[in-house]
Parts: sequence; C-alpha cells; structure tokens
Amino acid sequence: MQFEQLRALAAIIDEESFEGAADVLRVTPSAVSQRIKALEASVGQVVVRRGTPCTPTEAGSVLLRMARQVQLIEAETRAALGQGVAARTVTPVAVNADSLATWFVPVLGEAAGWADTTLDLRVEDQDHSSRLLRQGDVLGAITSDPAPVNGCRAELLGSMRYLPVATPDLHRRFRKDGGADFTRLPMIQFNAKDDLQQRFLQARGVSQPPPRHLIPSSEGFLAALRAGLGWGMIPELQLEADLTDGTLVLLEEDAEENVQLYWQTWTLNSERLNRLTEAIRRAAHLLR
Amino acid sequence: MQFEQLRALAAIIDEESFEGAADVLRVTPSAVSQRIKALEASVGQVVVRRGTPCTPTEAGSVLLRMARQVQLIEAETRAALGQGVAARTVTPVAVNADSLATWFVPVLGEAAGWADTTLDLRVEDQDHSSRLLRQGDVLGAITSDPAPVNGCRAELLGSMRYLPVATPDLHRRFRKDGGADFTRLPMIQFNAKDDLQQRFLQARGVSQPPPRHLIPSSEGFLAALRAGLGWGMIPELQLEADLTDGTLVLLEEDAEENVQLYWQTWTLNSERLNRLTEAIRRAAHLLR
Repeated sequence: MQFEQLRALAAIIDEESFEGAADVLRVTPSAVSQRIKALEASVGQVVVRRGTPCTPTEAGSVLLRMARQVQLIEAETRAALGQGVAARTVTPVAVNADSLATWFVPVLGEAAGWADTTLDLRVEDQDHSSRLLRQGDVLGAITSDPAPVNGCRAELLGSMRYLPVATPDLHRRFRKDGGADFTRLPMIQFNAKDDLQQRFLQARGVSQPPPRHLIPSSEGFLAALRAGLGWGMIPELQLEADLTDGTLVLLEEDAEENVQLYWQTWTLNSERLNRLTEAIRRAAHLLR
Repeated sequence: MQFEQLRALAAIIDEESFEGAADVLRVTPSAVSQRIKALEASVGQVVVRRGTPCTPTEAGSVLLRMARQVQLIEAETRAALGQGVAARTVTPVAVNADSLATWFVPVLGEAAGWADTTLDLRVEDQDHSSRLLRQGDVLGAITSDPAPVNGCRAELLGSMRYLPVATPDLHRRFRKDGGADFTRLPMIQFNAKDDLQQRFLQARGVSQPPPRHLIPSSEGFLAALRAGLGWGMIPELQLEADLTDGTLVLLEEDAEENVQLYWQTWTLNSERLNRLTEAIRRAAHLLR
C-alpha cells in the first residue's frame, strides 16, 4: 500500500470521478487508474464503485478513512519539519443545514485565518452525518448521535431550539377550538428525513397527516414560512425579528422541540483538528 | 399494471423506503411490498433497488415518470368531476440552490395560494437537474440544459449573472501587478460540480489551482465570502448592499459569468403544471 494510492482514492471520492482526481493530482487519468488497480491488487478487493459519482466500496471506506488520517498526519509532520507550508490540508466536515445557516458561521471566519487548511463542508442531516464519519468521508461531524463512531470521540455542543411558527394569516385560516387545526394546516418539511414536524404532531395526537411541502434549504424553508406556504419548526436562531414584527406567530406558547448536537471527530492527536474543535466550541455558545 | 402499484412505486422513491411509503399510503409495509412484486411481475423486470435509500432501476424510472403523470391527470380529472378537492397533488420540481436563494422565492408565495397542490422541491445543480426529469423524479426543472429531455419542452427564463468578489482585506493581501493574484488567492466553490470559478480562472490563463474551500449552501457561500474565507462567483441577485457598503469588492471590473436558465417540463396538458409555469415566468423577470 502506498501513499500515492491512498491519495488517488481520496481524490476520486472527493471529485467523484477518475478524471476529476487526475486534474487535482495533476497526473493523467490512466495514472490514477493504475494506482487504484495496484491498491485493489494489494488489498485483494475492489475499493471504488465506478459510476457517476464514483463511490467507495466497504473496503474502500476503510481505506479512505486511513487515507484522510495519513494525509492530516503527513501535512502536520511536514509543517513540523518546516516543509510544505504552501500545501493546505483538506478538512472534510459534515454539518447540518440549520447549523450552517446559524451558529456555525463564525467557524468560517476563524477558518479564514488558517493558512494551512481548506474546508470541505458536506451538508447532511444531523441524524445521518455519523454515517459519513464511519465511511471515512469526513474528519468530523455535527451530529445528533451521542454514541461515538468506532475510533471517534463525541462531545455535547448544546441544543438547537425549534419553534412551531406560521404567518398570522395562515394561523387564522386554519383554526379550531382556539388552537391551530393541525389536521388541515399545511406543513413544511425540510426533506423526507426531517421528522421534527411529525414528532410535534404525534405528541399532540394528530394521526391524520396534513398536506406537506418539501423545501430542502434552511433559508428556503424560512422564505416558505414567511410566504405563508405552511407551518414548520424553525430554529429560534434563524428567526430574526419575525416574531416581534408579526411576520410569523407561534402556533403554541411554550411549545418547542430541542435537538441536541454533538461534535464527533476522530481520536487523532492533530493540531489542526484540535484547532477546529476549539473554533466549533466557541461558536456553539449560541446553542442552549 | 394498476394505479395502486404505480402509487406505491412513487411513494417508495419519495419516502426512500418501503416503510415510509406504507406510512404515507396508510397501508402495511407488506401491502406495499406485494404491490411492487406484482408490478415487477407484470413488467418482467426489477423496478426498485432495495437499499438506503431505495432507488428506481432503469425500468423503474420509466414507470415512475408514468406514475407522476397519471397522478397529475387523475387529480385534475377528479377535480373536474367535483371530487377530491381535499386531495392535493404532489408537485416535484428541481431547482438550483442559487435560484431558490433569490428569484424563485415569489413562486413559494404563489404556491401558498394553491389549495390543490403541495410542492416537493429538489435542490440540484442546474447542470444536473435534467437527469431528474429523465428519471421521472420531477415534473419540471430549472436547468442550464437547453436541449429538451425526451417528452419535455424547454423555455429560456433568462440569465443569472455571477460576479467575482472577495472582502477588501483578502483582495489587498493577495495582490499582484495591480490585480488579484489568482494563483494564491483562496477560492470558494459550492461543491465539486461547481465550475464557475474554474471557468473564470481558465479564461485568465491561471493553470495552477489555488487553495479551494467547498461550502455547499448558497447562503453559507455568501457567509464564507463575507467572512473572508476566499473569493467566489456569487449571483448579483444575492448581493444585498455588500458592494455599496464595502463588505465585498469586485475583483475585476466588467468581469462576469452568465448562466442561462431554462424551465423544462413534461409536455402534459395540465392546468396545475401550466399555473406553475406561469408563476415561474413571472418570478423569472428578475433574471436578465
């Protein structure tokens, strides 16, 4: 197994193709292909599923994880030796859309000062991002999963507080017995994985599912709420003046859903990873 | 081939699992499974790849496309007969992130007034959304592809104008010969598919790739630009007061990349689809 083979594997997965990897590594696609064949011969298993996009096989995921760790350690070793100051390490991190739209932003500002790192953010639902860690796609993940992935550590960052809101007009039109008529009031979900609204309805004994719109963007979700498309659970941090200026109203007082967020990273003694962890901890003070 | 089998197929793809489909259709997972087996027996091919998520096979994509069209026609026929006013048709539409963050927002406002429709937006790069049309995943797509997908029509909506910007501080730090030093100035890309920055660099003969951050969210991209993480091509429509108040500066005067956007939909004589098309045309007046 050779460094350049692992580098080729990581580049193929990041760029989604052999051609993209060749561009980034500044070699020919056939050189990339040869490295992968050699890697596959040395481990005796197929490591890349050739497709659009290219994806790692199970064996490939194990190798990818190793590749990322080796890259990080290599870069830090070079830096310690006074070499490779110009080469930046790619830091792949999974973050959920609502975090990226709110409390995570100052991390971008801190990263702007890191001359040795580039960020490669992957936007993934907090319930599914630990999968990216397991697969070796990312070095760290903002996740709702408190159980550390094998070889990782997890720390609680805090809670995101979600509030049920809609426009006053929509609230007025779908009313029953003084409250909202949740069997008819249209609902907005982020995507099929988003069950925040459903959990809210279940807790209130609403079994009949209301009409449902899917708007898979944090800011699009807020725009859809403001446009009166439906009601939804929105992070309190994302509501600017909406509640005070009356653009949106709470559908129930004291109703909220809290999502605990954890930061999971590999247990790797890496300066860059520690620095990222500290920046994330500082930004997370906006959480509850 | 039966209506309920096609409905089961569409629900599995939308909900990504047999269990999710069962919830939505309010039947047991085994009933969903039986419908799919019957459908597979009737066409003599596997239609769903069982996995996480479930995806359609090639034959499944053809059937999925038929399923969506039948659902729409059925809903409109019921409405014409004075039935099924309560049942809303799900309208899956692909839209690129930059459009959803800008000119597409008024479409959400119009959709709020449609009692017979729910929106199911899929955020997909404009260079790749015509694939979703071909697969039958969506009824219509905002795409940069002018060539109509088989069975679809395409109309030009206008151009999105992208400008190269960065913070004044970053611009000052990476300067050469009076202009920006694009071989060293860190660059922000939306994701691996986004080649707007690369095209800009190629047109200026920059072959050495600069450090590259990946921030796959339109609003996150703008936040990263404002935080000084790097330079990037940003839709003019997304820049609020940034250029006038000096938060961001243009890296070159009169430099721009224009992306032409088309609206592609099935050639189906459907009232709901026509209404959506009209709303999109009205919103698109913000394009150039």
